Amino acid sequence: MKLADIIQQVGGTVEGDDQIEITDASGLEHAAAGHITFIADNKYKDKLAACAASAVLVKAPMETDKVQVIHPAPQLAFAHILAAFHPEPRPAAGIDARAAVDETAKLGQNVTVSPFVSIGRDVSIGDNTVLYPGVVVHDGCRIGNDCILHANVVLYRGGIVGNGVILHSGVVVGADGFGYTPNEKGEHVKIMQVGRVVIEDNVEVGANTCIDRAAFGETVIRTGTKIDNQVQIAHNCDIGPHSILVSQVGLSGSCTLGHHVILAGQVGLADHVSLGNQVIIAAKAGVNKSIPDAGFYGGSPAVSGMTWKKYVTTLPKLPEMAQKLRELEKRLNAIENK
Amino acid sequence: MKLADIIQQVGGTVEGDDQIEITDASGLEHAAAGHITFIADNKYKDKLAACAASAVLVKAPMETDKVQVIHPAPQLAFAHILAAFHPEPRPAAGIDARAAVDETAKLGQNVTVSPFVSIGRDVSIGDNTVLYPGVVVHDGCRIGNDCILHANVVLYRGGIVGNGVILHSGVVVGADGFGYTPNEKGEHVKIMQVGRVVIEDNVEVGANTCIDRAAFGETVIRTGTKIDNQVQIAHNCDIGPHSILVSQVGLSGSCTLGHHVILAGQVGLADHVSLGNQVIIAAKAGVNKSIPDAGFYGGSPAVSGMTWKKYVTTLPKLPEMAQKLRELEKRLNAIENK
Amino acid sequence: MKLADIIQQVGGTVEGDDQIEITDASGLEHAAAGHITFIADNKYKDKLAACAASAVLVKAPMETDKVQVIHPAPQLAFAHILAAFHPEPRPAAGIDARAAVDETAKLGQNVTVSPFVSIGRDVSIGDNTVLYPGVVVHDGCRIGNDCILHANVVLYRGGIVGNGVILHSGVVVGADGFGYTPNEKGEHVKIMQVGRVVIEDNVEVGANTCIDRAAFGETVIRTGTKIDNQVQIAHNCDIGPHSILVSQVGLSGSCTLGHHVILAGQVGLADHVSLGNQVIIAAKAGVNKSIPDAGFYGGSPAVSGMTWKKYVTTLPKLPEMAQKLRELEKRLNAIENK
Repeated sequence: MKLADIIQQVGGTVEGDDQIEITDASGLEHAAAGHITFIADNKYKDKLAACAASAVLVKAPMETDKVQVIHPAPQLAFAHILAAFHPEPRPAAGIDARAAVDETAKLGQNVTVSPFVSIGRDVSIGDNTVLYPGVVVHDGCRIGNDCILHANVVLYRGGIVGNGVILHSGVVVGADGFGYTPNEKGEHVKIMQVGRVVIEDNVEVGANTCIDRAAFGETVIRTGTKIDNQVQIAHNCDIGPHSILVSQVGLSGSCTLGHHVILAGQVGLADHVSLGNQVIIAAKAGVNKSIPDAGFYGGSPAVSGMTWKKYVTTLPKLPEMAQKLRELEKRLNAIENK
Repeated sequence: MKLADIIQQVGGTVEGDDQIEITDASGLEHAAAGHITFIADNKYKDKLAACAASAVLVKAPMETDKVQVIHPAPQLAFAHILAAFHPEPRPAAGIDARAAVDETAKLGQNVTVSPFVSIGRDVSIGDNTVLYPGVVVHDGCRIGNDCILHANVVLYRGGIVGNGVILHSGVVVGADGFGYTPNEKGEHVKIMQVGRVVIEDNVEVGANTCIDRAAFGETVIRTGTKIDNQVQIAHNCDIGPHSILVSQVGLSGSCTLGHHVILAGQVGLADHVSLGNQVIIAAKAGVNKSIPDAGFYGGSPAVSGMTWKKYVTTLPKLPEMAQKLRELEKRLNAIENK
Repeated sequence: MKLADIIQQVGGTVEGDDQIEITDASGLEHAAAGHITFIADNKYKDKLAACAASAVLVKAPMETDKVQVIHPAPQLAFAHILAAFHPEPRPAAGIDARAAVDETAKLGQNVTVSPFVSIGRDVSIGDNTVLYPGVVVHDGCRIGNDCILHANVVLYRGGIVGNGVILHSGVVVGADGFGYTPNEKGEHVKIMQVGRVVIEDNVEVGANTCIDRAAFGETVIRTGTKIDNQVQIAHNCDIGPHSILVSQVGLSGSCTLGHHVILAGQVGLADHVSLGNQVIIAAKAGVNKSIPDAGFYGGSPAVSGMTWKKYVTTLPKLPEMAQKLRELEKRLNAIENK
C-alpha cells in the first residue's frame, strides 16, 4: 500500500514522500525498511533514530530522516493501520462434523463451530462468531455477532454474551459463586447460585479468567471493558464500561465499578466495595472500602496515591526511626534527670 | 408450594398466613411477590421494607407487612428452600458415543459421560456422577458417587475423589508438584512427583484452581472444605475439613491446615506452614510461620489481627512521624547545646 | 535392583552392604524397608532414625543403622534414582482416530495424539512428543522432540516449543497480549498482537499458567526455566535460562530476567522491569524498578532483602512508636516551657 492510501483511511498529514510503499506496521524496536511505526513519547527519540522504519506517525514534527505523518493520535492511527495489515485470522465458517451441537441451537450466518465444541439446548449464536476447538456452551446461553471464543472456553448455562466479545482460552464464565452457610454441625451448606453472567459488547477477557454467575440476578461486565489473564470476578459484581482490569486482579462478591476504572495487576477488592468512575488503583493494592471519587489510590488498605507513595518511601527508614526514638528518649531522660 | 409445606421441611414457626403460595426463593434485592426471602442482619431492615417478597425468614420477629417465618438459622433454612426450587440441573445419564472411555473403566449407575470426555484405564466412577464435556480422567483415578466434574476439568493419573464433590471448569487435580534439584551445571533436574491427590467427600473446588499431586504420599483436601476459583495448592498440602479457601489463595508445599480454617482472598502461605483449627487469615496476608492457635491474623508477614490492624492504620502517618522525629531531635539538640 | 548397580549409575561410595536389594526410592517420611532415601540436611537426623529405608544417600557419613551412600550431591543422585524407578508414564504412540489433525501437519516418529486433540495447518511436532486429550495446537506452531503437552493445553498460532518441554494442563501459550489505545470516545481500541511465543528446551510450565504472545517480536522463555502453576507472563517478556518462577507470579509487559533468577510466590513485576542474573525476589514482593545486581530483595516496592526484613520486623511496633513520639514531644514541651 502507498502511504497516501493509508493516510486516507486514518487521517493525518504527511511530511515527505507520501507515495512510498508501506509493507507493514511495526513497533519502534521491530520495524524494518518499508514499515510504518509510531512514536508515543519524545523519550524514545533515540530508538527512532536507530529504527529502520520508512515512515513514522508523530504528534508533532520531529527531526528524523523518515517520512513523518503528523496525527493528533499517533498510537490510535497506528492501531488501525496495524489491524489492516494483520486482520485477526479466522477459520472457515461451518459446523465441523466432530462438534456436538444440540438440535435446538440457533446459529447465525457464517458461524465457525470447530471440532470438539459442545453446544447445549436453546443456545443462540450470532453471525460471524467463531468457536475454537473445545469450547463448551451450556444450555440457554446467548452469544452475539462477531465474537471469538478461543479454545477451551466454558460458558455455564444461561450466560449472555454481546457482540464483538473476545474470550481467550480457558476463560470460565458462569461457574457458581462462592456462597455457603454453616449448619449446626459446622458444615458449609451450598447456597445455590441461580443468577447469571452478562457480558456486554466489545468486552475482551484474558486467558484463564473466571467470571462467576450471580447468586441472584446478574454479574455484569459492561461495554468495552477489557480484562486481562487470570482475573477473578466474583458473584454479583458489576464492572462499569470501558474499564481495565489487569492480570491477577481479584474482586470479591458484589463489587461495583464505575466507567473507566483501572485496576492494576494483583489488586484485590473486598466484597461490596464500590469504586467511582475513573478510579485508578495501583498494583497489589487491597481495597477494603468504597472509593467514590476519581483519582489514584494505592496500598493495602488502599489510601490516596500520594499518601501511599510517601509512606512506602519512608518504610525502609523505619528501623532507623525506631533507633532514633530510643536515642531521643535516653537523651530526654538524661535532661530530665539533671 | 404452600408456605406451610415448606416450613414442614425446614422448620420454623409462621407469623401470618401459612397458606400463601410460594413460587420461588430469592435474595432481598431480587425477591418478587410470591417469593420467600431471608434477612441475616437487622441492618438490612430498610431493604426488607423495599422488597416485594411475600414471606421472610427471620431469627426474631420484626415489624414487617410480610408473613414471617421465625427460624433459628434463617439463612440455612433459606439455602434448603432455594435448593428445592432450584435443584442443580443435570444432563441425562448415559455415555455419549463421542466420549473416549477405556474398556477397563467401571462406571456406576446413572452416570453421565458427555461428548469429548476421556476416561483412562482402571478408572472407577460412582453412581449419579456427571462428567461434562471435555473432562479428562487419567488412568487409575477413582471418583465417588454424586460428583459433578464441570467442563474441561482434568484429573491426572491416580487421583482419588470422594462422594458429593464438585469440581468447576478448568480445575486441574494432580499436576506435578514443583520440585527440582540443581545439577553441577546449574540446571534444574526434575524430582519425579510420585504421590497423588485425595479429595474427600463434599468438597467443592472453584474454576481454574490447581491441586498438585504429592512428591510422595498424598496431597489431601479433607471433608467439606470449599475452595474458590484460581487457588493454588502445592504438593503435600493437607487441608483440614470444613475449611474455606477464598479466590487466588496460594499454598506452598507441605502446608497443613486444621479444621474450619479460613483463608481470605490472595493469601499466601510459605512452605511447611501449619495452621491450627479455626485460624482465620485476612485477605492478602503472607504467612511465613506456623500459627497453632485459633484466631484472626493479618499482614505480611502475618501477625495477630489486632496488631496488624493497628499498624496499618498508623502507616499513612509514617512520613509525618519521620518529620516530627527530625523536629524533636533539633529541639533536643537546641536544649543540649544551651 | 542391587544397591551396587544403582551406585554404578549415579556415583557415590557405599558404607555397608552394597548387595542389598533396593525396590524403590522415597522421601524420608514415606520410605519403607527396601527403599533408598536421602538426607539433605542434618536437621532431619531424627526423621532418618524413624525412617524404615534400607539405604540413605548422604553428603558425609552419619551415625545410622542404614546402608549409607556417600555422594557429593545426595538429592541430585536421589532424583536420578527416583526417575529410574518412576519413569514418566506415557501412552502408546499413534494418532487417535478421534483427533482432528490437519493434513498439512508433520508429525515425527513415535508421537502420541490423543482423542479430541486439534492440530491446525502447517504444524510440526517432533519425535516422541505426547499430546494428551483436548490439547489444541493452532496453525503454524512448531513443537520439538520429547515434549509432553498435558490435557487441554492450548497453543495459539505460531507458537514455538523446543525439545523436552512439559506443559501442564490448562496452560495457554500465545493468547493476545493486553494492549489497547484509547480513541476520542474513550473506548479502548485493540492493538493487534502480531508477535509470537518461543519456549526453549527443557522448560516446564505449571497448570493454568499463561504466556502471552508478543505485541511484536517474541515473548521468550529460555532454556531450562521452570514455571509453576497460575503464573502470568505478559507480552514481550524475556525470561532468562534456568530461572524459577513460583506459583501466582505476575509479570507485566516487556520484563527481562537474567539467568538463574528466582521469583517466589505471588511476586509482581511492573512493566519493563529488568532483573539481573541470580536476582532472588521474596514472596509477595512488588518490583517497580529494575534490579541489575544479584542478591535477595523483598517488599513492595522491593528493596534489599536485609532492609525489607528489618522494616517488616519493626512494623508491628509502629503504633507504639507513634505513641512514644507523642509522649516525647509532651516531655520536650514541658522542658521547653520551664
